[in-house]
Amino acid sequence: MERVCNFNPGPSAIPLEVLQQAKEELLNFRGSGISVMETSHRSKEYEAVHNEAQEKIKKILGIGDDFKVLFLQGGASLQFVMVPMNYLDKDKRADYIITGYWSERALKEAKRFGTINIAATTEQDKKYTRIPKQSELKLDPSAVYVHLTSNNTIFGTQWANFPTTGNIPLVADMSSDFLSKKFDPKPFGLMYAGAQKNLGPAGVTVVVIRDDFLAKANPDLPSVLTYHTHAKENSLYNTPPCFAVYVVYLFMEWVLDHGGLDGMEKRNQEKGGLLYGAIDKYPGYYTCPVDKDSRSLMNVVFRLPTEQLEDAFVKQGKAAGFLGLKGHRSVGGIRVSMYNTIGPEVIKELVCFMEDFAKKNG
Amino acid sequence: MERVCNFNPGPSAIPLEVLQQAKEELLNFRGSGISVMETSHRSKEYEAVHNEAQEKIKKILGIGDDFKVLFLQGGASLQFVMVPMNYLDKDKRADYIITGYWSERALKEAKRFGTINIAATTEQDKKYTRIPKQSELKLDPSAVYVHLTSNNTIFGTQWANFPTTGNIPLVADMSSDFLSKKFDPKPFGLMYAGAQKNLGPAGVTVVVIRDDFLAKANPDLPSVLTYHTHAKENSLYNTPPCFAVYVVYLFMEWVLDHGGLDGMEKRNQEKGGLLYGAIDKYPGYYTCPVDKDSRSLMNVVFRLPTEQLEDAFVKQGKAAGFLGLKGHRSVGGIRVSMYNTIGPEVIKELVCFMEDFAKKNG
Repeated sequence: MERVCNFNPGPSAIPLEVLQQAKEELLNFRGSGISVMETSHRSKEYEAVHNEAQEKIKKILGIGDDFKVLFLQGGASLQFVMVPMNYLDKDKRADYIITGYWSERALKEAKRFGTINIAATTEQDKKYTRIPKQSELKLDPSAVYVHLTSNNTIFGTQWANFPTTGNIPLVADMSSDFLSKKFDPKPFGLMYAGAQKNLGPAGVTVVVIRDDFLAKANPDLPSVLTYHTHAKENSLYNTPPCFAVYVVYLFMEWVLDHGGLDGMEKRNQEKGGLLYGAIDKYPGYYTCPVDKDSRSLMNVVFRLPTEQLEDAFVKQGKAAGFLGLKGHRSVGGIRVSMYNTIGPEVIKELVCFMEDFAKKNG
Repeated sequence: MERVCNFNPGPSAIPLEVLQQAKEELLNFRGSGISVMETSHRSKEYEAVHNEAQEKIKKILGIGDDFKVLFLQGGASLQFVMVPMNYLDKDKRADYIITGYWSERALKEAKRFGTINIAATTEQDKKYTRIPKQSELKLDPSAVYVHLTSNNTIFGTQWANFPTTGNIPLVADMSSDFLSKKFDPKPFGLMYAGAQKNLGPAGVTVVVIRDDFLAKANPDLPSVLTYHTHAKENSLYNTPPCFAVYVVYLFMEWVLDHGGLDGMEKRNQEKGGLLYGAIDKYPGYYTCPVDKDSRSLMNVVFRLPTEQLEDAFVKQGKAAGFLGLKGHRSVGGIRVSMYNTIGPEVIKELVCFMEDFAKKNG
């Protein structure tokens, strides 16, 4: 069987060039005579990969030495805990903006550590089918940070422009759209992203933390749970997930080779234009429940007239080589996850399939 | 350059057959048309790997359904925290047996959560060059558990027989000798092991927990930090480190193909006989500081007459294709880490090198 078009929501597609390179040197990494999986994390060979991966992420984001890039474990789920554990206590407050399932998960953990103000939620009115507007935000002037989820994988929404919060640092779960478009990183005290969408394999979490925000983290925590440890030890306090970091390194090289954030933004906008164009071309047949200005370029969700047609769409799609089209079980419908790896040519193929399907089953 | 003899202390050698299999299907996992790195953790393809890896570990250990096998992240360092967080509070007590650096790290974190009794330590008299005897243990009858480190990578010591603790469950950091020999698992409430020595690549931690001990874990913790979450969700609460689990699966298949714990014990005893035999054959030239009944079969440490000779040994060893012979920076000397992957034939080659070196530089 040939390789297929992979629209899995995460873990998700990794560029073929990255996989090929990993395959080629799997038994003998950079001429060392061993696999990168077998290489000591204290060796110069691994440290070069580790440091180069950090440098590439900084270069892609356009950030300087006032930010640190950390490679942690435990996914966004552990960051839901580490963020409030490091920054809150019973006398401290934070703002959370709730735009879906993952924001709710972050909120639930944060409530254990401090007083949380829900600065906005789009649950009630339209069940998370939009991102709140700046004018809706009820920000707490005494908040230590404002937390948001930059892209919502289940509901198919994404912040087109990040909110303004004055001097209060933004903290963002960017797991599902990190490095997918240009943005100003300066307002962010901390960004975190599980690798398995836009960065590499599951098992490493990238945390980008601004030095002045790092300085405010609680140092009096278990060693592995304070950001100070990992920043001070360059994420080598304990053994990092070396192979996952290595694939991130290769993936970041691919991003730079494809134009960095400029290239990714262009690529993702083209894909969005193609796919939302196809949906909007068949109103009443394909229906996207998301407000137009909140549409995600990473996870495109839409419905067909009936669940039977949706099942047929997923089934026939799979037979045609399109994997992972089923919407999240909590909302149903169709979901096309098209992170950085997916090229416009793949979306063009999918659009042909959609047009064909609509004509045959209209 | 050919592949070399890899004595790295961790991440360490992985069986060539495991790496070859991983390489072979890196672009197309089990005919799915995608890499295992790109496969959804909710797919039947990945779940089969996940469940089969658990089953193989249970089969190797000879444990039944009263134990659960979890795949977590964060290494032993996070287990140093999760264990006391789940089992202690200011009114609860635990015993810790201190046999080296890693026990000290575990102790340091545990002290944050409850009252810790140091049941024994071998630091004072001979700087961790032995394992305490049963008669030395001052066990607290009210302890919730007794924690020990089964093998000490830096000091080259290993428990030949685990201590008897009556009804109090043992909790063990087995990161550096898990699945290397036969032992009775029943007294263990919980065993944990970072994968990067005897199981696979860094980035996954195997936790084996007995149901009655699991039942006593604190459920009122952040979701990702209570054992209940991971046991209930079969380690799929959040995205697991899928690729690392997949390599563990292949590695466990290799262990079973090589005779399970019987085969590993025989293999490791043979290696120990060869290497300690060579050391003891040159008394005054090669010196192992460890008491004979505490000698590790995983990490063999020894000294040469001078540091200059030790440097020459490491350098000439490397040139001869032996990687990772340098002792830990805190203790110096030579260290040969020979986890399950390393075969007796490799140790025979090393012994030839040692004999040759002693004759030339004696």
